[in-house]
Amino acid sequence: MFLTNLMPVQEAHDIIKSTLKTVGTENIVLEDAHMRVLAEDIRSNLNSPPFERSAMDGYAIKAEDTFGFSEANPAKFKIIDTIGAGQLSNKIVKTGQAVKISTGAPIPEGANAVVMEEYTNSDSELLEVETSVTPRENVSPMGEDFKKDDLVLRSGRLLKPQDLAIIASSGFNTVEVYKKPKVGIITTGTELVMPKPLLKGAEVINSNHYTFKAVVEASLAVPSLVHCIDSEKIVKDQFESMLDSHDVLITTGGTAISKGDVVVDVTEKLGEVLIHGVALRPGKPFGFGTVDDKPVFMLSGYPVAAMVQSDVFLRNSLYQMQGIEYQPQYVIKTTSKKIASNLGRTDYIRAKTDGSMVRPLKIKGSGIIRSMVESDSYILIEENLEGINEGTKCNVILYDSLTV
Amino acid sequence: MFLTNLMPVQEAHDIIKSTLKTVGTENIVLEDAHMRVLAEDIRSNLNSPPFERSAMDGYAIKAEDTFGFSEANPAKFKIIDTIGAGQLSNKIVKTGQAVKISTGAPIPEGANAVVMEEYTNSDSELLEVETSVTPRENVSPMGEDFKKDDLVLRSGRLLKPQDLAIIASSGFNTVEVYKKPKVGIITTGTELVMPKPLLKGAEVINSNHYTFKAVVEASLAVPSLVHCIDSEKIVKDQFESMLDSHDVLITTGGTAISKGDVVVDVTEKLGEVLIHGVALRPGKPFGFGTVDDKPVFMLSGYPVAAMVQSDVFLRNSLYQMQGIEYQPQYVIKTTSKKIASNLGRTDYIRAKTDGSMVRPLKIKGSGIIRSMVESDSYILIEENLEGINEGTKCNVILYDSLTV
Repeated sequence: MFLTNLMPVQEAHDIIKSTLKTVGTENIVLEDAHMRVLAEDIRSNLNSPPFERSAMDGYAIKAEDTFGFSEANPAKFKIIDTIGAGQLSNKIVKTGQAVKISTGAPIPEGANAVVMEEYTNSDSELLEVETSVTPRENVSPMGEDFKKDDLVLRSGRLLKPQDLAIIASSGFNTVEVYKKPKVGIITTGTELVMPKPLLKGAEVINSNHYTFKAVVEASLAVPSLVHCIDSEKIVKDQFESMLDSHDVLITTGGTAISKGDVVVDVTEKLGEVLIHGVALRPGKPFGFGTVDDKPVFMLSGYPVAAMVQSDVFLRNSLYQMQGIEYQPQYVIKTTSKKIASNLGRTDYIRAKTDGSMVRPLKIKGSGIIRSMVESDSYILIEENLEGINEGTKCNVILYDSLTV
Repeated sequence: MFLTNLMPVQEAHDIIKSTLKTVGTENIVLEDAHMRVLAEDIRSNLNSPPFERSAMDGYAIKAEDTFGFSEANPAKFKIIDTIGAGQLSNKIVKTGQAVKISTGAPIPEGANAVVMEEYTNSDSELLEVETSVTPRENVSPMGEDFKKDDLVLRSGRLLKPQDLAIIASSGFNTVEVYKKPKVGIITTGTELVMPKPLLKGAEVINSNHYTFKAVVEASLAVPSLVHCIDSEKIVKDQFESMLDSHDVLITTGGTAISKGDVVVDVTEKLGEVLIHGVALRPGKPFGFGTVDDKPVFMLSGYPVAAMVQSDVFLRNSLYQMQGIEYQPQYVIKTTSKKIASNLGRTDYIRAKTDGSMVRPLKIKGSGIIRSMVESDSYILIEENLEGINEGTKCNVILYDSLTV
């Protein structure tokens, strides 16, 4: 099955999205959970703080004992104990008694307020309080942050530093997260060689090897890489071997639309080709299929076309497979130049932003890597537009917004 | 030396910045270079593409042979060879001859244009061309992307996928990058325990252990972690042991300003305390010093205060140490509520954005972790402002913009 008409980008998105499944979950130690995706709701095991604690350095007292007193007429107390953070007083505070207390320490039984050190004078056992404090002053209630059984985080959250803090404080040292998709990357092309300072004959450097390892890493998934010459048998063997141990395949090269091409033929033989050729520029020769229910993303051999295809179709799919809700974020900028486009085709124009303006790069050609290095964004021209005039607003996708 | 006046935030920034050094460079394989920082200019070893190549599937010919011909009167050629990508033709194309050629293959000697397959008819050895092509049509020049000795990337670049592609295509399989700072994290506090479902007495969970491992990871540096009780001897021993093998120390806890506190005392004894107490809320009890010329960031024990201190002072320092030029990015939003502040103090208000609006969170207290989890940004109130009125514009730092 080779589609002769180019498929609209949105239709391709819908087909891909409908085939994807999350890759299952695993229990990991909380220390390793940064940038992993929560696969369970977190309800706290504990109150936080776990006890009434002092919000200040000072003295725990009965507030009533200070009522009506002032600097001119200080209230008098006997200091019966001293506690720091991590210490419990075994004393019960009675009328006229005080416990010296550090910030964060538990309020001793019998006390109901803390007077700040700066409103007091003390001389070993004797304390004068020069102000009137109200009940609960400088006392942080137990569970002020969150209470036992509170829902503190929902499944699907991409875990940032502060999220680990709340999971830890809820009493957990392990956490259920989505597995990272294991991604097999097969670069194809008989002409491709690894980087070296001199090339012979028709050799071309396999830059996709590096690009797509990095794209998969940036998508929080785990890449493994192989390279194949343009031989259907070798590519087919490699597909079968990688499909055993991976959740996704990515290929580069061998996706020409005008004819059957190696990678598309192999996918067709082992499984099903669902997309071959999309109304996207650059990146028309994009293929997608499934083999053994696993998604196969067939990208162009040309570096820029392949990058655009992966920015449009691959990254968001890898997010979806690990439970991350990702929507590309557009910003609105004014274009400094007219841009031509065709109705019915979605264009991703490499561009450089400058404040509220955006400048489409002159460089054309789906092989021009420099254009990706010198740009910081795409101008997106949807299929219902016939280009954009100079000085008009347009949708811009910053490269930085492609990562979560 | 304990500073009695709170230091303005900008002054603290300047002091820290002036003490920091980059941590040296190392040569690594290009495959591992994603999100590393380039420590050399890259000049290409090669032309890219390395030869004149065909931009289309078609036939390499002499353009002159088609001049004046058309569909009604096609030009006739003899097909003398067929080459795919990766193949060189050893034939020289003469008048009336054609070489069948794939996209990306080198243009054979003698030919100066490629006619697209769709404008031709062929019958084994015979080719008809139904159009007139111009010299260089469908020929991508050698070095069209970049030329040998071109400067393709500058030192200091944080390497993204497309950067690896251009380094590879320039002929390099290794690259000189800045080392990642090795960061020793010492959490202090006798009351702190690792997460467990039930706490005893005055125990509190050490959430900073998780937060700062993740903050250091998010800053592209390498964390190692230990915990110490509030003992000057133990903290001092740990400082000395970690300083041997790390580039930076971070501590949490033991930074109280009203008195000498454990961590600050230790830094003072082993090196120099340069900052102790900043006009920042939350996060006043921030300390910074150097020991053996290595920076020591002394953060609060309270989770939120420590996070703010690290967002203000630590992350950017770790970037600077590995050669990343980082400036926090502000966005302008309209506040939905009046916010009070004091002249002379910089406030970082946890807030939640919603389109062009931003809502400061009600939750106060430097221990309230939930406020960091429920917010997505800080409203920044600089020291020269006495608060912000409802409905006015303010500077907002999105948490997402804290990472590069």
